[in-house]
Amino acid sequence: MSIIRQDLASKDWTIFSTERAKRPFDYKKEEKKQVKKEYLKNCPFCRGNEHMTPKEIYSIRQGNDWKVRVIPNKFPALQAKELIKATTERHIKEPYLYMDGIGSHEVIIESPKHNDSLPIMKIEQVDRVIQAYRQRFINLSKSEDYQLIIIFRNNGKIAGSSLEHPHSQLVATPFVPSYVRTKLYEAQRYFDDFGTCVYCDMIKYELKNRERLIYENDNFIAFAPFASIVPYNIIIIPKKHMSCFLELPENETRSFAHSLKIVLSKLYYLLNDPDYNYVIDSTPPDKSGERHYHWHLEILPRLTTRAGFEIGSGVYINTIMPETCARLLRDCKI
Amino acid sequence: MSIIRQDLASKDWTIFSTERAKRPFDYKKEEKKQVKKEYLKNCPFCRGNEHMTPKEIYSIRQGNDWKVRVIPNKFPALQAKELIKATTERHIKEPYLYMDGIGSHEVIIESPKHNDSLPIMKIEQVDRVIQAYRQRFINLSKSEDYQLIIIFRNNGKIAGSSLEHPHSQLVATPFVPSYVRTKLYEAQRYFDDFGTCVYCDMIKYELKNRERLIYENDNFIAFAPFASIVPYNIIIIPKKHMSCFLELPENETRSFAHSLKIVLSKLYYLLNDPDYNYVIDSTPPDKSGERHYHWHLEILPRLTTRAGFEIGSGVYINTIMPETCARLLRDCKI
Repeated sequence: MSIIRQDLASKDWTIFSTERAKRPFDYKKEEKKQVKKEYLKNCPFCRGNEHMTPKEIYSIRQGNDWKVRVIPNKFPALQAKELIKATTERHIKEPYLYMDGIGSHEVIIESPKHNDSLPIMKIEQVDRVIQAYRQRFINLSKSEDYQLIIIFRNNGKIAGSSLEHPHSQLVATPFVPSYVRTKLYEAQRYFDDFGTCVYCDMIKYELKNRERLIYENDNFIAFAPFASIVPYNIIIIPKKHMSCFLELPENETRSFAHSLKIVLSKLYYLLNDPDYNYVIDSTPPDKSGERHYHWHLEILPRLTTRAGFEIGSGVYINTIMPETCARLLRDCKI
Repeated sequence: MSIIRQDLASKDWTIFSTERAKRPFDYKKEEKKQVKKEYLKNCPFCRGNEHMTPKEIYSIRQGNDWKVRVIPNKFPALQAKELIKATTERHIKEPYLYMDGIGSHEVIIESPKHNDSLPIMKIEQVDRVIQAYRQRFINLSKSEDYQLIIIFRNNGKIAGSSLEHPHSQLVATPFVPSYVRTKLYEAQRYFDDFGTCVYCDMIKYELKNRERLIYENDNFIAFAPFASIVPYNIIIIPKKHMSCFLELPENETRSFAHSLKIVLSKLYYLLNDPDYNYVIDSTPPDKSGERHYHWHLEILPRLTTRAGFEIGSGVYINTIMPETCARLLRDCKI
């Protein structure tokens, strides 16, 4: 018999149908035959090929060496208004609304080495990646043009990645999407009801109950959400209340990097480098300091296919209980 | 430069970035080498293999021959409460809510022939498929246990289909998903503002403007939505206002079947049998007769990959303008 659970924050329901499950280890991909090299002649993100990318926006250096580079996406979905002579004004073409494609679409190159990856990087390097996320978020949030900043990572082809060299992306949009507004509204309503942040309440419960807990340090916890939408769905969240990613203190990037490295390593070893997306879910920058929302990083492995039912209903059919995933990840030695 | 458009009904924004586009015809898949046979010994949906499926729920017959069969899904995500001794009651496991997996999960086998497909079927057979959709929708809507009924079709592996034999599915859920409720609420708000159905207004505009129109007959139109979320996104909608799919009159199933067959044929020939999902988007059965919503069938070809940005923001990056898709589909001879 299946169980249906509601996510406390989004109010979305998930159906758990364990009978449909493959066993957790069936998700292992074929062994990757190809050994990746540290340098590829035609990879625009490799050290030595800097001339192949658009002009650098930001970098973290050590002496003459870059460690992390941020560059504009070569095929940007959105661009700064100065570059394209545009405005954030909304236009009406009766009965529809539209606007110019203003924004920023950036690539964060996580390492000069082609065959590097977050699970095997030194903690210092993962920390630099987080520092780059933070710095670009802070800088972009100074512009009134950008209403939402999304930082995300696509790992593997199935997750939508087209280039192998380790990288994340950032998109700043000139509007708040209704999907995000709805989430904020639901959290606001929870705050109106209970007078507390819904994520703070979840953290408190998950720390007490511990069956979905995956990792914990002084500042962050990682857990499998009660209503996980896919197998091995994971949330990494600061223990202290902070609504917006730009509130992450400079002296806590390392602690966040540590949580991320450990959780991704566990996924890497347990499931043999699965394809996944992760996203930093935060309030828009102008909602920094809000009491009802709480930024976090969400990991969504791409082990299953979203089909007609998910698309039509917004409801996911998940085939593994989060308690099982959390236990396997806790037990996985790295 | 990209253009961002808002969907009038859902308030969702879509970014149109034509620079990122592949040319429409690049989406063609590799020629399929394998010739499919009419009968496969081990396919549970083929004529002659009826003993391999669970007990039939409904069928359309001609003499001794079945034309369309409806059977329970062998791996159901949801089941009737009588079968699993459960209730629709919500439980609280502080701070979370959950409930039993009550519902119905059915398969509509669209033809006895393994190598049949909606574009090549006779119109009588497509009509039988629609009649089966309608009859199951009407029957299930009599139960108070089921609050939403989703009918959908997954075409091809990328679209989440695991069995090749042509079939659709139906899932009845014991709750209204927040995704659906939000859509209904937005349409209600539009009705409160303008006193009209948002979809009726769209139909009126698309029929006048015609640049996104793909097909029209006496009772239905097919068009590419203004803020299409993916390339070749198509909506087929009744011209007459009807909020719930169960309001489709018996004497209009043929006209609906005709629209569907023609639109799918155009997709088939233009893009070489692309993977796609389609979903019937309708009010819950107990909202039949509402003035603010309008049922329709939405087709979403799976030519692109949903990645971190789409997941985190709910915003899609589309690479082809709907006007281009509509023109190519209009011009495609079948």
